[in-house]
Formats: sequence, C-alpha cells, structure tokens
Amino acid sequence: MLRLYDYLPSGNGYKVRLLLAQRGIPFERVELDITKGETRTPAFLAKNPNGRIPLLEVEPGRFLAESNAILFYLAEGTPFLPDDRWLRAQVLQWMCFEQYSHEPNIATVRFWLHAGELTSERRAAIARKRPLGYAALDVMERHLDARPFFVGDRYSIADIALYAYTHVAGEGGFDLGRYPAVGRWLARVRAEPRHVPITHR
Amino acid sequence: MLRLYDYLPSGNGYKVRLLLAQRGIPFERVELDITKGETRTPAFLAKNPNGRIPLLEVEPGRFLAESNAILFYLAEGTPFLPDDRWLRAQVLQWMCFEQYSHEPNIATVRFWLHAGELTSERRAAIARKRPLGYAALDVMERHLDARPFFVGDRYSIADIALYAYTHVAGEGGFDLGRYPAVGRWLARVRAEPRHVPITHR
Repeated sequence: MLRLYDYLPSGNGYKVRLLLAQRGIPFERVELDITKGETRTPAFLAKNPNGRIPLLEVEPGRFLAESNAILFYLAEGTPFLPDDRWLRAQVLQWMCFEQYSHEPNIATVRFWLHAGELTSERRAAIARKRPLGYAALDVMERHLDARPFFVGDRYSIADIALYAYTHVAGEGGFDLGRYPAVGRWLARVRAEPRHVPITHR
Repeated sequence: MLRLYDYLPSGNGYKVRLLLAQRGIPFERVELDITKGETRTPAFLAKNPNGRIPLLEVEPGRFLAESNAILFYLAEGTPFLPDDRWLRAQVLQWMCFEQYSHEPNIATVRFWLHAGELTSERRAAIARKRPLGYAALDVMERHLDARPFFVGDRYSIADIALYAYTHVAGEGGFDLGRYPAVGRWLARVRAEPRHVPITHR
C-alpha cells in the first residue's frame, strides 16, 4: 500500500490526499508535525534529504518528494492529467506558477499566522509577501474569468495544486471577496466527484 | 520558428537556451531587460500575465511560461527526459526542488549582488537566504556523491534545471569549493555534447 508522510494542515500534503481520494487509491498516512521538527530528524532525512512533507513511499524504501511531482506521478494515464502534450505542458506551467509565485507568498503567510510566534521579522516578511500573494491571485482571476478550469476546460491536477492553498487563503488574511472568478472556480472544484476537505484524514 | 522571450543573464532563460541548443532546434530570441521593467509592460503582460521570462511562443499567439514546464515540453520524447514513469517523476521532483528550494535562494542572491542597488532590506534578505542556499547545495552534494547525474545515471532536464544557477552560484557569493561532488557533476554537464555557456545567444 502507498504510504504518505504528511502533515494535516499542509496544503501541499492535501494536494496528494485529495488526488488519492478522487482516484480511490487507499493509502496509509504517517503524520509528522513540522512545527516540532519531525521532518528534520535523521530518520526522516534518510527518506527525504530535503526534510519536507509530503513524501510518498511507493514501495518500501522507494520515495518521491515534492507535492507537484507526486501529483504528476499519480495522475499520468488518468483523466486528471491530459494526454495531449501541449495541454500537459500547460498543466505543468500552472503547477510551476503555484510553487514559485503562489505558495511561497500565500501558504507561508497562513502558516506564520497560525503556527508559532509572530516575531517582528515574520511580521516584516508578511508585509513583503502580501502584495506578491495578491499578484498571484490577480493572475488567477484574469485567467479564470473566461474559463471553468485552469487547462483545457476540465478539472486536472493544475486545479488541485492551486486549490490547495487558495481555498484557505483567507486564513492567511487574504480577501478572496475581491476575486469573483476565483470564487466560482473554488465552488466548481469543491463540486467535483469524491472531493474531500483539507481536514480529511 | 520558435520564439523565446528571454534575458541573457537569467539562469531560467539559460535552461531553455541550453536545451534548444542541445536539441539543435533553431529559435528567435527576444531580449527583455527585466531590470528596466520590460516584462511588466502591457504588451508583454498580454503574452504572460505573470510578467516573467522565459516565455516560449510555440506558434504566433500560443505561449508557454515557466522555465521547467518549457523544458518538459521540449524534452518529451527525446533522450533528455526518460520515458519510464518513475524516472520521469524523479526528474520532476528535482525540477520542483530547483524552483522551490534552490532558485529562490541562490539565483535571487546572485541577482541582487549584480543588478540594482544593494539596499539594507536586500542585505537582510541575502543574510536570510544564504543558509537556505547552502542547504540546497548540501542536498545536491549528498545526492551526487554516488551518482553521475540527478536521475537514472544519465543527463536529463533535471541536470539542466539545476546546472543553470548552480554553475554561477559563485557570482552570488556561494563557495562551491565546499562541494566536490557538485563540482564533478558541473564538469560532467559542461562535457555534454553541444553544451553552450550562459552567455551564448
């Protein structure tokens, strides 16, 4: 059985949980509390030298890291990833956008507001990241204004990747009320078959 | 003919230039100076709403953004990307690592040291990013100690993605002398057929 090293509040972990649920693939979940350094122990670093969850153990001793690489691996050959080369490239484009322009600004602010102490350094970092997070939401709003989903008019792992931290952006103090097209897209994603919330174990 | 919107000092642009050169694909290069805001003009934002290079125009009006998505698109079906699903997932894993754990710390420091004013805010950011950049190099060193290339013992777009900013990390003040396995890997990448330097137009 697949084993997922995970942390329940993590949107990056949620991406994988959501796709596994929607594909109907059973898996064992191993919870690691990143706020207690449980992904930086020698035992975990032997599994993922980069010390991060999610980490998928596809068979004993065989590990795949990076949420979007795991999504791609689990989606190949299924309706969650287009077969067409151009559409697949666009899925990857949006997943790269998510990891570079969206997650570091939106997810990190949410994390800092909910875990650990809000130091003056973190307050300053939040102030720097806030406009960058809104810039990412602006790009999404513009793209979704005329489209139901990110790529090829159908639900794919690009939507899963971007849904994970967008739907909880309010927990990071982002006002999603400014983004009606994003709001309609969030509702469409939630209406997909076998959808599960981020708190689903 | 393919058209690449690009900025010569950019390692993200270089990734695409290097793969195109190694595949022997001719392309037209359009230089945009990111330090002068040339990727934030209305004309360019109409092409890429995220306002970044590299941007590949595969045919008139059809655009693909994000360096690693472009690499994947150009490498599919070639020896630069394995056909095997598990190896391909590992290539993506390392490209995600590059964009999340490596590029934001190593490339950004290099850029700030060479473009624009070194404000006190940037100095503070460099101090924060320095240990994160070294942490990424540590992960690479550990992985490369027993392997010639990142995935499956052969050169792939994972190596291209990671070479781009690693080989110029010294320009960001990183001491690559601490990383002998990385140094041997850099030499192997440079020895690949049709290799071109970052300054190659």
